[in-house]
Amino acid sequence: TIVDRVKAALISKDLEGKKILISAGPTREAIDPVRYISNRSSGKMGYEIARAAEYRGAEVTLVSGPVNLDVPVGVDCISVTSVDEMAEAVFSRMETADAVIKVAAVADYRPKNRAEHKIKKKSHDMTIELDKNIDILKELGKRKTHQVLVGFAAETQSLAENARKKIEAKNLDMIVGNLVGDPRSGFGTDTNIVTFFHPDGRKEPFESMGKDQVAHELLDRVVGLMKVRG
Amino acid sequence: TIVDRVKAALISKDLEGKKILISAGPTREAIDPVRYISNRSSGKMGYEIARAAEYRGAEVTLVSGPVNLDVPVGVDCISVTSVDEMAEAVFSRMETADAVIKVAAVADYRPKNRAEHKIKKKSHDMTIELDKNIDILKELGKRKTHQVLVGFAAETQSLAENARKKIEAKNLDMIVGNLVGDPRSGFGTDTNIVTFFHPDGRKEPFESMGKDQVAHELLDRVVGLMKVRG
Repeated sequence: TIVDRVKAALISKDLEGKKILISAGPTREAIDPVRYISNRSSGKMGYEIARAAEYRGAEVTLVSGPVNLDVPVGVDCISVTSVDEMAEAVFSRMETADAVIKVAAVADYRPKNRAEHKIKKKSHDMTIELDKNIDILKELGKRKTHQVLVGFAAETQSLAENARKKIEAKNLDMIVGNLVGDPRSGFGTDTNIVTFFHPDGRKEPFESMGKDQVAHELLDRVVGLMKVRG
Repeated sequence: TIVDRVKAALISKDLEGKKILISAGPTREAIDPVRYISNRSSGKMGYEIARAAEYRGAEVTLVSGPVNLDVPVGVDCISVTSVDEMAEAVFSRMETADAVIKVAAVADYRPKNRAEHKIKKKSHDMTIELDKNIDILKELGKRKTHQVLVGFAAETQSLAENARKKIEAKNLDMIVGNLVGDPRSGFGTDTNIVTFFHPDGRKEPFESMGKDQVAHELLDRVVGLMKVRG
């Protein structure tokens, strides 16, 4: 909209010339041609970061799982479905990125065997065997050179503990923790209650904010981290 | 829109005074508060039938799983997520209905145990044990008295054989078979290639049609069945 473009024009272009790679949304892991395993990520948080980064002058690439959102103006969007597609799209674009922000809720597991045809209902119970998926964020942490790498941790409990573990295990520059389950925070909402966790142990808890505000707070930190890095 | 209302005004009101109950969309069966098992149903076919039935003068109740569609004007919509919610919503409304059209792609199985908290990623593989869900359509077939009962069969192979089996096993008055996998037929498309199967063995194959056209062809048959039934 015109309002959006005016807003964009008024914002400081502190990401001018920077390439930001963002992943968003869920992945879907097929059980058969009809059924799949997925998760409740709406993609809103990732899309708001993409929009905010574009406002601030960045060249933004968004790798998105299946969501029902409009791609923000000026953002290059690559649509993926499964974790393998997500991994390939992200890894092939990380090298040239100045920052990688992994918001996507990537499936940790996928069905060991994908049935070619719809599985017929049987009279008895069933079991789905799952293989562990590649940990995209961990792999990004291993491969990173100059990039600022930010992850997300959506938890239903022990947020600080899980966020701290992830920041170290995945070689992150920052992690955004959010406790899902609160009606103002998490799946499909327009607001979020987050805490930023830093590798030096600092944490920054926030009150409930619009996801667009969370996006700008996060990008403020990313700009700072890029400066430190030269 | 105005065009829609003009269209509605021009259509014969052959369902005036009739109550039609329609189920649409997928269900989601929770693995934990974040992850779920679902299927690729977009809900479009069911919503088009609801819209067409309302145009034709019916009092329409739509029981819908999670989809991204606008509820047609004049249609009463009950939103559900899981198969249990779907079953409860449908069974409690079937008695007063003149016709029940089950378009929803209800999950056949659900996780045996739903974890209260997000399951943490483990180092090894995993297994999800599944319980068989209630077969809503079969149960509707058992309970039906005066109602016209129509089901859908989405298959990736052996369509006629599976449709014929279902029509008998579930005591249906008609089943709409569609072969999914064809780009003009099935998930998320606006067109569909269907065959109507009748209990007496007749079948009516159609070319690719808009889902709105499929809806009207189907309702023509429902009107006919209601007349026979008095």
